[in-house]
Amino acid sequence: MFSPAVENLVAQLTRLPGVGTRTAQRLAFHILQRPKPEALALAQAIQEVKERVRFCRECGNLTEEELCGICLDARRDHGLICVVEQPVDLISLERTHEYRGLYHVLGGALSPLDGVEPEDLRIDELLRRVERNGVQEVVLATNPNMTGEATAAFLADRLRNRVRVTRLASGLPVGGDLEYADEVTLGRALAGRREM
Amino acid sequence: MFSPAVENLVAQLTRLPGVGTRTAQRLAFHILQRPKPEALALAQAIQEVKERVRFCRECGNLTEEELCGICLDARRDHGLICVVEQPVDLISLERTHEYRGLYHVLGGALSPLDGVEPEDLRIDELLRRVERNGVQEVVLATNPNMTGEATAAFLADRLRNRVRVTRLASGLPVGGDLEYADEVTLGRALAGRREM
Repeated sequence: MFSPAVENLVAQLTRLPGVGTRTAQRLAFHILQRPKPEALALAQAIQEVKERVRFCRECGNLTEEELCGICLDARRDHGLICVVEQPVDLISLERTHEYRGLYHVLGGALSPLDGVEPEDLRIDELLRRVERNGVQEVVLATNPNMTGEATAAFLADRLRNRVRVTRLASGLPVGGDLEYADEVTLGRALAGRREM
Repeated sequence: MFSPAVENLVAQLTRLPGVGTRTAQRLAFHILQRPKPEALALAQAIQEVKERVRFCRECGNLTEEELCGICLDARRDHGLICVVEQPVDLISLERTHEYRGLYHVLGGALSPLDGVEPEDLRIDELLRRVERNGVQEVVLATNPNMTGEATAAFLADRLRNRVRVTRLASGLPVGGDLEYADEVTLGRALAGRREM
């Protein structure tokens, strides 16, 4: 229908998550209509991110240096490591402003059916960090779903004898209704009830 | 939180329509995690579209040549011009497979409040096309909203004495319910009722 260049852009945009053909067309037309410098800035940003950004040697977080800003921050508690699946999870935790330790990004969760085995995640690196440094506690913050729970259980087995291992609490979301809570969440909230 | 390159990519993605900060972060992480060639293909596609694609000299459609494929197609009816606001509207009409004439893309709709005056649209070009060629009919296919209707009325005034001017029918959408039709649409459907 359009020129090959537009068709190609639509095809490339369709590979993004949550972008179907219609959305891709809308985005492509937007890019076509914007001034050239603005569109090229996006292309440039994509290139730069692929050229500059790598994984922190220590924790697996995204960084442009050898070590990420969090690992380099001397004011943070280096005896506390929070294990997450992805860098986005790290942002979510940082947004709480409740955590002042370090992180360890696994790069996913164990899922043998999808071919994700322990050696595909940064698990050995985690064990080495725990051995090497004076780590007092590892907080397992993998997702509270099947693969995340399995990963947490696997890591807890490996770490339990070396260090204190904790898991993020499961329970009712703040602001939620008891009426609409699913039974598993409500069961967890009940099992994890606290003294007031 | 992340590296400047990631922050910049998120900022650039946020400029796309319908993309908020969360979506932009998700897209940025997707781009980070995909193999480098795939991410660079997207950057390349954006660049190429800005370099190669221009507007058809005749109708204002997108093309990589002087004239677009539709204007060059001798099998189409060159005596019939359908006026649309944007190239996307042209795709929608082509998808019907009901139209075999040419198009004229205005590049928007008249909207004095937003500063869109007749000279900002490709209206003079349309009048010249009608003068120059043996055009028998102009179908006004601007959007059936306030600015689109105003544009259609404006164009009809200018064209009426020179050529047959028609407007896309308004009425009930096929598959819709009378019960849920708004009163303006239903009124139009009634006014435009046809002999059976």
